[in-house]
Amino acid sequence: MRAVVFENWKTFPALKEVDRPVPGPGEVLLKVAGAGACHSDVAIYKDFDAGTPGAVPPPFILGHENSGWIEETGPGVQGFTVGDAYLVYGPIGCGRCRACSRGQDTYCENAASMPYLGTGLGRDGGMAEYVTVPARNLVPLGDADPVAAAPLADAGLTPYHAVKQALPHLDGGGRSALVIGLGGLGQIAVQILTALTGATVIATDMKPEAMRRAEANGAVVAAGGAGQVERIRELTGGRGVDAAFDFVGAAPTIATAAASMAQGSRLTVVGIAGGSYEWSFFTTPYEATITNTYWGTIEDLHEVVAMYRAGQITPEIERFSLDDAPEAYRRLESGQLTGRAVVVPHG
Amino acid sequence: MRAVVFENWKTFPALKEVDRPVPGPGEVLLKVAGAGACHSDVAIYKDFDAGTPGAVPPPFILGHENSGWIEETGPGVQGFTVGDAYLVYGPIGCGRCRACSRGQDTYCENAASMPYLGTGLGRDGGMAEYVTVPARNLVPLGDADPVAAAPLADAGLTPYHAVKQALPHLDGGGRSALVIGLGGLGQIAVQILTALTGATVIATDMKPEAMRRAEANGAVVAAGGAGQVERIRELTGGRGVDAAFDFVGAAPTIATAAASMAQGSRLTVVGIAGGSYEWSFFTTPYEATITNTYWGTIEDLHEVVAMYRAGQITPEIERFSLDDAPEAYRRLESGQLTGRAVVVPHG
Amino acid sequence: MRAVVFENWKTFPALKEVDRPVPGPGEVLLKVAGAGACHSDVAIYKDFDAGTPGAVPPPFILGHENSGWIEETGPGVQGFTVGDAYLVYGPIGCGRCRACSRGQDTYCENAASMPYLGTGLGRDGGMAEYVTVPARNLVPLGDADPVAAAPLADAGLTPYHAVKQALPHLDGGGRSALVIGLGGLGQIAVQILTALTGATVIATDMKPEAMRRAEANGAVVAAGGAGQVERIRELTGGRGVDAAFDFVGAAPTIATAAASMAQGSRLTVVGIAGGSYEWSFFTTPYEATITNTYWGTIEDLHEVVAMYRAGQITPEIERFSLDDAPEAYRRLESGQLTGRAVVVPHG
Amino acid sequence: MRAVVFENWKTFPALKEVDRPVPGPGEVLLKVAGAGACHSDVAIYKDFDAGTPGAVPPPFILGHENSGWIEETGPGVQGFTVGDAYLVYGPIGCGRCRACSRGQDTYCENAASMPYLGTGLGRDGGMAEYVTVPARNLVPLGDADPVAAAPLADAGLTPYHAVKQALPHLDGGGRSALVIGLGGLGQIAVQILTALTGATVIATDMKPEAMRRAEANGAVVAAGGAGQVERIRELTGGRGVDAAFDFVGAAPTIATAAASMAQGSRLTVVGIAGGSYEWSFFTTPYEATITNTYWGTIEDLHEVVAMYRAGQITPEIERFSLDDAPEAYRRLESGQLTGRAVVVPHG
Repeated sequence: MRAVVFENWKTFPALKEVDRPVPGPGEVLLKVAGAGACHSDVAIYKDFDAGTPGAVPPPFILGHENSGWIEETGPGVQGFTVGDAYLVYGPIGCGRCRACSRGQDTYCENAASMPYLGTGLGRDGGMAEYVTVPARNLVPLGDADPVAAAPLADAGLTPYHAVKQALPHLDGGGRSALVIGLGGLGQIAVQILTALTGATVIATDMKPEAMRRAEANGAVVAAGGAGQVERIRELTGGRGVDAAFDFVGAAPTIATAAASMAQGSRLTVVGIAGGSYEWSFFTTPYEATITNTYWGTIEDLHEVVAMYRAGQITPEIERFSLDDAPEAYRRLESGQLTGRAVVVPHG
Repeated sequence: MRAVVFENWKTFPALKEVDRPVPGPGEVLLKVAGAGACHSDVAIYKDFDAGTPGAVPPPFILGHENSGWIEETGPGVQGFTVGDAYLVYGPIGCGRCRACSRGQDTYCENAASMPYLGTGLGRDGGMAEYVTVPARNLVPLGDADPVAAAPLADAGLTPYHAVKQALPHLDGGGRSALVIGLGGLGQIAVQILTALTGATVIATDMKPEAMRRAEANGAVVAAGGAGQVERIRELTGGRGVDAAFDFVGAAPTIATAAASMAQGSRLTVVGIAGGSYEWSFFTTPYEATITNTYWGTIEDLHEVVAMYRAGQITPEIERFSLDDAPEAYRRLESGQLTGRAVVVPHG
Repeated sequence: MRAVVFENWKTFPALKEVDRPVPGPGEVLLKVAGAGACHSDVAIYKDFDAGTPGAVPPPFILGHENSGWIEETGPGVQGFTVGDAYLVYGPIGCGRCRACSRGQDTYCENAASMPYLGTGLGRDGGMAEYVTVPARNLVPLGDADPVAAAPLADAGLTPYHAVKQALPHLDGGGRSALVIGLGGLGQIAVQILTALTGATVIATDMKPEAMRRAEANGAVVAAGGAGQVERIRELTGGRGVDAAFDFVGAAPTIATAAASMAQGSRLTVVGIAGGSYEWSFFTTPYEATITNTYWGTIEDLHEVVAMYRAGQITPEIERFSLDDAPEAYRRLESGQLTGRAVVVPHG
Repeated sequence: MRAVVFENWKTFPALKEVDRPVPGPGEVLLKVAGAGACHSDVAIYKDFDAGTPGAVPPPFILGHENSGWIEETGPGVQGFTVGDAYLVYGPIGCGRCRACSRGQDTYCENAASMPYLGTGLGRDGGMAEYVTVPARNLVPLGDADPVAAAPLADAGLTPYHAVKQALPHLDGGGRSALVIGLGGLGQIAVQILTALTGATVIATDMKPEAMRRAEANGAVVAAGGAGQVERIRELTGGRGVDAAFDFVGAAPTIATAAASMAQGSRLTVVGIAGGSYEWSFFTTPYEATITNTYWGTIEDLHEVVAMYRAGQITPEIERFSLDDAPEAYRRLESGQLTGRAVVVPHG
């Protein structure tokens, strides 16, 4: 079969012919419906090397946002019907520590001794005609479109998990939320917040076009530049926001979020730009918390799919054939995409 | 001033001339903007007697859903501006037990030794030109219409509090809620659930007209009669509802709600019809809870006002002059009202 | 190998020679350290028949409270060391629904289509020299005694899960809890409550000896009979208890618990005697909830083991050889045991 | 009456003869039982000036940790009995914003327009023979010793509130907590954590004597210096602590706490040394939060009193007569006290 292979550190991936994989014990072979191209793929093949913390050495097939149809089941797997559509939970942990037991493989206690982090992350991913995945990592899609669903596995799950942790702060009348960074994840965060809460959702980005899309998704926008924090606070009646989500994570975005918080609020940094914030007792309102988060749980992904099927999440995508997958990565690198690139091998 | 006085047990209230009250220490005199007529008023003057548990003896002025403008402040009260509009939190507890300390006078630990339960409930209420209330019971309305706000003090606060307790069950994708009984409180419950959650809100009532209004408020409806529970379960994908609110509280409505629950869900009975339900280990799904609730907290009322000002709650009202207040009660008794009757003394 | 086999409905189990099992894909073969004998085993072989809801047809080896040492691993299983000791999470669901994804196989959404409910519950259990279990169902015991640990799999996990759900009600000063029924599970509930909360733990049972053991575990006792509810309330300063756990579940015990509740409290019925309680709006204090619960999650079991290793849970056991397993069941049936019977095949 | 008056910025307080106060509307006059001397008093008279944020100008009587007996009630106050003992909740907000409505005057939304922050903080405090306080700020002590109770109003309430916010992180088996800084508040934090949770409580301080007292209160200690974080992690089985409380708040103590955290944990900085911590996405484990907190709520103080009455909190105090109050402050300044200094005007 054809596959997009990351072959060497700092090397653009290659479209190659490889053997079709065979599902092992507890695994399923999926015929790939869609595989999303993610910014972190670019970091993997362009920036990482053997010394990067958490980097898994090549070669492996890329693609950690996958959906597909059941093709074949491995030993010990029962109850699947060939042709049924599923979304794939990407992270793969040891399967038996406390974190994995609750379906949170992202925080596997034995991650250091695992040979890979997940599908498309050390283990062969979905940028191929077929992919094998553990049966427990499958979330049924029913009759929903599996192609547009693919990006939900990361671009949907990551903001969903971040928002879900913060929902207790948004439960009730008169609440507000701030979303900084309106790329793929940020736009879905706006959709999720609009659907699941009654909060005023305030959104901001450097790109006016991204802010227009956020408005269409239900947000009010607060343009950057001088006076931005004052504009945000004014939209909250002076209280500040009850939850902020920073999908950039640079020092200036964290500072903006921190300066916009209400007492008892929660600031979640999702973006990994790695900016720092000089926290002290006197910098943030009382009982405001600051934290980070990474991807989500299997159960979260079930809930993301429920929102997708209910029309509450609508990923914006651009389709590419498998032959055009390298072109998708090129456009992603050069910032030419407006939606998430989804590779459709059997289009 | 004129006032609607409940003079004797089992006696229809009378419009009378009484002395204008003087605010005591810690109190404020309000010029009444609106006073809602509630079904519980009818129970008070028509059904209660000296032996009714919780009944406070007449005479007193009716009206526990009140809004008004600051007219005068009593000793020790500072920081109010004459003419500013406020909504009144009705319950009045001892003010210093644990429950009162958190603004939940409804659950005052010293209620048994209090001379009254609240404004219009033993203590003179708002069916008059003026009313005195404790300063801490006031929630600012800003520039929002105080007349339409009046019913929020009970018909808004009661469903809000019930829903808020259940929000943890509704946080996330793929949730559903059931509202039984679509009178004033039930309709506002639908509005609150639609605004604050992403849940599918299922509503039911005996009256088709009430169900049409619930649909306009964002609910899907499940008509009563044979197969109702199956219809409700079908709307939830078979899982059952994550939260149910019964604004009737009769044995059949509780039974319908209980049969519609999902694992880990919460059934809140708000209506006081007093029906019973024979619970056992085997009657409800695992970790489904059943409970009751009564009115709400001061902080809840701040949040209700925030939703009202944001257009998320829109009480349906019919205005009556103070002279027509008896007529309002007559229509309430005979079921001729479609919205909440609000008496407007200074119309 | 020898095993205790439940061969036919309503038939006392037989000690037989059977083939040693072979671990399948994703499974592990354990050399059994201890297998607890539980009251529900007696119900299975003595009371159940083909028409009993939830009953799985014989034949199968009994034993759902198991611990053991790694002997061999099946296909696809890695990272175990032969001889290491583990406790077994008994329930086995489909492994990929929402409930299973969070390690709560007890509430598997596909339970109806599974061939068994768990180890020793339709699938061969641990009353044998060896047993196979899914690798994800194993919780490491480290250097703790695996024999005394065996009952924790049910008699520890069940009260732990019930208590954990109620902990938010017990968080803080001045709280109290009620435990009704002081057999194996009830005693461990007392130990857990004493260790994890600052609450006054009130315990009651028909047997004075059981109450003495509860006192030794840190409870204060409230004898049954006339005036019991008053005695319980007095121990709580009149407020009632914040959480109650009924390990019997008969109508009188539920009634006692319900009459002892505080506002906003939680009554969990764990015992399956099947008694009913006539609930209405007016029977329990405001916002008190009543619910049931069943067994627990894999993560809970990790936490139970942590408490066991810290000396916070100390199961009281009586050891039996595998040959004496039938005798253990006979004594269990006749009420002659004071601690949990644990069968030790390799003693 | 005699009173300890803070007369001018940067001036040691003077014992003076002043008029006995008269309780205003909604207030009570207490005969002072005990008044605790707090480090923040020293900051007020020694360090603050007109430019210090939050500083209220002199003159006023010091003392914000007060207990006393009812002597007289002001207009509009009912239900008190002369001679009954109460502990005083110190903060005084506007009384009618959302924060005050839930008994959290510390976070009053109108604090900027209030003439003082609380009893002994701008308004006359309890270092005197008599003090007036709002009736709602009183928590009944029953027959408990009111003198030893006095410090609970701050040295008990502050750690209690900090711990209570973190209890959800400590609910369950296998948890651990870290307390840094073992002065008065830190010791009570250890007592509270030991009483209310099953966590391993790890304590650290520069003074060996303070660590010995913490051990007596139930903690295990981890001495400072090289390898401290490793020692703390080792005590948690490598996971890190689920909650940390820093009662110092200097840069090195925050850094130690942050380096000791587990995934999903909560670090609360209580001490106001004002040290900073350079937070980034990569500095703390996933979903670990960092926050601050200030004093507590009226309801919290009820719960602190419940723990005090149950013997779960035992403040260590040294008694001083009112004449010796200046001496108490001198010893506090020079670090010569081992327990909290409590001034007893009617000893």
